[in-house]
Amino acid sequence: MLRRTYDGQTCSIARTLEVVGERWTLLIVRDAARGVTRFDGFLARLPIARNVLSDRLATLVRHGVLDRVQYQDRPPRHEYRLTAKGRELVPVLLSLMAWGDRHLGDDAGPPVVAEHAECGGPIDVHMTCRQCEGAVAPAEVVTREARRVGHVTRDV
Amino acid sequence: MLRRTYDGQTCSIARTLEVVGERWTLLIVRDAARGVTRFDGFLARLPIARNVLSDRLATLVRHGVLDRVQYQDRPPRHEYRLTAKGRELVPVLLSLMAWGDRHLGDDAGPPVVAEHAECGGPIDVHMTCRQCEGAVAPAEVVTREARRVGHVTRDV
Repeated sequence: MLRRTYDGQTCSIARTLEVVGERWTLLIVRDAARGVTRFDGFLARLPIARNVLSDRLATLVRHGVLDRVQYQDRPPRHEYRLTAKGRELVPVLLSLMAWGDRHLGDDAGPPVVAEHAECGGPIDVHMTCRQCEGAVAPAEVVTREARRVGHVTRDV
Repeated sequence: MLRRTYDGQTCSIARTLEVVGERWTLLIVRDAARGVTRFDGFLARLPIARNVLSDRLATLVRHGVLDRVQYQDRPPRHEYRLTAKGRELVPVLLSLMAWGDRHLGDDAGPPVVAEHAECGGPIDVHMTCRQCEGAVAPAEVVTREARRVGHVTRDV
């Protein structure tokens, strides 16, 4: 009964977790977004085995989250650069970070703060309604299965 | 070398993944947010073994994401209700969903749409700056390690 993947789930959350839900993967994306590009750079920041890191990087390259680029000829050396598609995971990272800051923090406060490059202000991730343009609280989100007309399920 | 947890990471993303990063956990939170409350209800929607589901539910209860509430005396039966803390994971779910809709979709369009309960409009997850109040693109996010004064790292 226990499947090892989310393949059977027709759901964009499950599909996304197929790409970035494996242990360490989102932390690799986090570090790539912070400017880490080289294998040894990731290895220095994450306490994982080389073969696991290799495997996760290959998955991210295969899905176009990272580009693998040769930066040196002899010997050949490659680095990993976050693509535009990969960078669009930043709201996922910041919403995970905001939840952790709020609920899993310690007395020393948030370990890392996200700021707007242009003005240095703190960044909020939030939900708004494209129609009424109002802010949307978590309890005000409903979901609808778009492929079954008229079928409405409350919340997310 | 390979650790099984993210414990050594002083990072709110890693801490959050300690709670919700295990395989299936975010999909359980997704279904709880959609109104599923009973063990068999989760089991019917997720192709996982009973013992794995038990284990994940227990973790979520321990961390205050779900409340375990007795709803029947004889025999005793319990249900699982998303707490306010758990509901604050909705932006995480919606940002994962938005990325999947955009990058992993098929021709049939998004399987599920998130709407504002009040007006039925579509919901966007986005980033804004609390200082200049402008919209913030992923490439405009910088992070700073808050515990090392003056140390700035570009991006997320």
